[in-house]
Amino acid sequence: MAINRQVLLAKRPSGPVTPDCFALRDAAVPAPGPGQVLVRNLFLSCDPYMRGRMAAGSGGYASGFALGEPVPARVVGQVLASRDGGFVPGDYVWGFMRWEHYSLVADAATLYRIDPSLGPVSHAISVLGMPGRTAEVGMLELGRPRAGDTVFVSAASGAVGQIAGQLAKAAGARVIGSAGSDAKVRHVVDVLGFDDAFNYRTVASPGEALDRLCPDGIDVYFDNVGGATLDAVLARLRPFARIPVCGMISQYDGQGAGIRNLAAVVGARATMTGFIIYDHMDGFEAFPARMAERMRRGEVRYFEDIVDGIENTPAAFIGMMAGDNLGKRLVRVAEA
Amino acid sequence: MAINRQVLLAKRPSGPVTPDCFALRDAAVPAPGPGQVLVRNLFLSCDPYMRGRMAAGSGGYASGFALGEPVPARVVGQVLASRDGGFVPGDYVWGFMRWEHYSLVADAATLYRIDPSLGPVSHAISVLGMPGRTAEVGMLELGRPRAGDTVFVSAASGAVGQIAGQLAKAAGARVIGSAGSDAKVRHVVDVLGFDDAFNYRTVASPGEALDRLCPDGIDVYFDNVGGATLDAVLARLRPFARIPVCGMISQYDGQGAGIRNLAAVVGARATMTGFIIYDHMDGFEAFPARMAERMRRGEVRYFEDIVDGIENTPAAFIGMMAGDNLGKRLVRVAEA
Repeated sequence: MAINRQVLLAKRPSGPVTPDCFALRDAAVPAPGPGQVLVRNLFLSCDPYMRGRMAAGSGGYASGFALGEPVPARVVGQVLASRDGGFVPGDYVWGFMRWEHYSLVADAATLYRIDPSLGPVSHAISVLGMPGRTAEVGMLELGRPRAGDTVFVSAASGAVGQIAGQLAKAAGARVIGSAGSDAKVRHVVDVLGFDDAFNYRTVASPGEALDRLCPDGIDVYFDNVGGATLDAVLARLRPFARIPVCGMISQYDGQGAGIRNLAAVVGARATMTGFIIYDHMDGFEAFPARMAERMRRGEVRYFEDIVDGIENTPAAFIGMMAGDNLGKRLVRVAEA
Repeated sequence: MAINRQVLLAKRPSGPVTPDCFALRDAAVPAPGPGQVLVRNLFLSCDPYMRGRMAAGSGGYASGFALGEPVPARVVGQVLASRDGGFVPGDYVWGFMRWEHYSLVADAATLYRIDPSLGPVSHAISVLGMPGRTAEVGMLELGRPRAGDTVFVSAASGAVGQIAGQLAKAAGARVIGSAGSDAKVRHVVDVLGFDDAFNYRTVASPGEALDRLCPDGIDVYFDNVGGATLDAVLARLRPFARIPVCGMISQYDGQGAGIRNLAAVVGARATMTGFIIYDHMDGFEAFPARMAERMRRGEVRYFEDIVDGIENTPAAFIGMMAGDNLGKRLVRVAEA
């Protein structure tokens, strides 16, 4: 008889997330009641924003995850049993489920059907899902790169950064990235087609690297990290620069240093805009096909970094927060 | 025979501006050549942005002031002699002239005629001029206060802040101010009609004061100061908050501390926009009459803090940077 292995939030992190923040539990596989759907999970997502919701009262934008319960996350799965008229067994779906093998979805309206003809089903929670739409909103709607602009993307090989940079390239901009290893830097330039990139862990400073790679300053900075990188960008803004702020991962772990150059937004007449993708869900239905078409045209390539086995989810998450992933970090918990 | 007393930039400040950064010089009164206009100056402006241009390579948005030359500034005066067809002696004008008794204007196209029927001629470089238009653009175009919003204005009794707060009140917002003395705080509340205000020098912290006066958070922050005040606001933003950044006077003197709460713009989906008024001069011709009408309706009251005598200009500027002015700081160098 099948069991439902789950990854629980056992302890709230203070500072970096550690393995003892999580625990495994084996539960019974639930049966769907009227209107409910039982999903056999295939891919669990690991995303930086989850760190904030694991901590209590961390100033995050959504309420915290419950202690002692499976960690909520975006999940791709396949319908195993349905008592909702909208889904039948075998349907591929994604939604906010949990880090577990089987998720009972109480409200079928929160599930999204996946069109498997658009690409691998895992893409529904990566390039064809929220990370992809995040890149599109942040880069195209807020960053608005123009031909000839210099665009800089931090966390350039990550779930969102890799798409953001390629969208700016397609718009005619010169695109520079930063990432946390030489392998990522090579990937960003050689595979994703960025014009150049640097390893923020080995350069003398982000400012030195930006002086070298963006000598005329920066028109658009797609900020995934905050911290010293943002500070260096602020000192090198071109007039009317745009800074969509997708996240400040360097500050999620409570390590944030102060930003010293913020006054530069006045001289540069710069606009910095924080955004959360759930404010931009109008017309999301059309997004997967639009992004899949960009991929078909070769404008966007996408890389996932897949870890196997639900037991490895805590390590996969902790490693992602430390930057050990090359591309979007997912955990595969069953074969499609 | 008349002499032209001038205030020169004698030394570039590093840190706070000191009296030895300036020197007086008595020069001959120039005679206008073809196409030139000679102006007898009445009011010299002292503005915080000038600090940045006195320093060399300070990251300001405009080139630095020349050493050994009279300090460039906005000035109100009266045409004394004109060899340009557009002006005749007696015309009241304002423009970028210099800290001196008589300014020779080489390009008459840079002079603006003042309509004295709109109010005191000094208003042309205060409420009916750039400070007024700065408040209008920052508060109404970027801040966009709505009825019921909580709006916070720092430097609330200053040249721009006093107008910004009153425009937000007229839009139906609840308006809180901060200022640097108890007298200013009383002025802001009792005379300008802000809902409440605090003295940032005597409160335990800006955060404590904002928790008390803006318990539900802040929708619009009109930032004149940066620093610890901005940091406290960032921790208290309401969703979709707007932060027009007019200046960060606390950082002009090189005293800037790091901003630690910037990551809050993501959770709040906040937009911070630096702006410079000279990017918003379209339609400026209509502005003085529009603001004069607001004053006639009683929506906006305006206060100038006038120091007499060109010799007192350095002290007037230094004092303004330290906050000793109540209202827009001007130096009167002749009677109208």
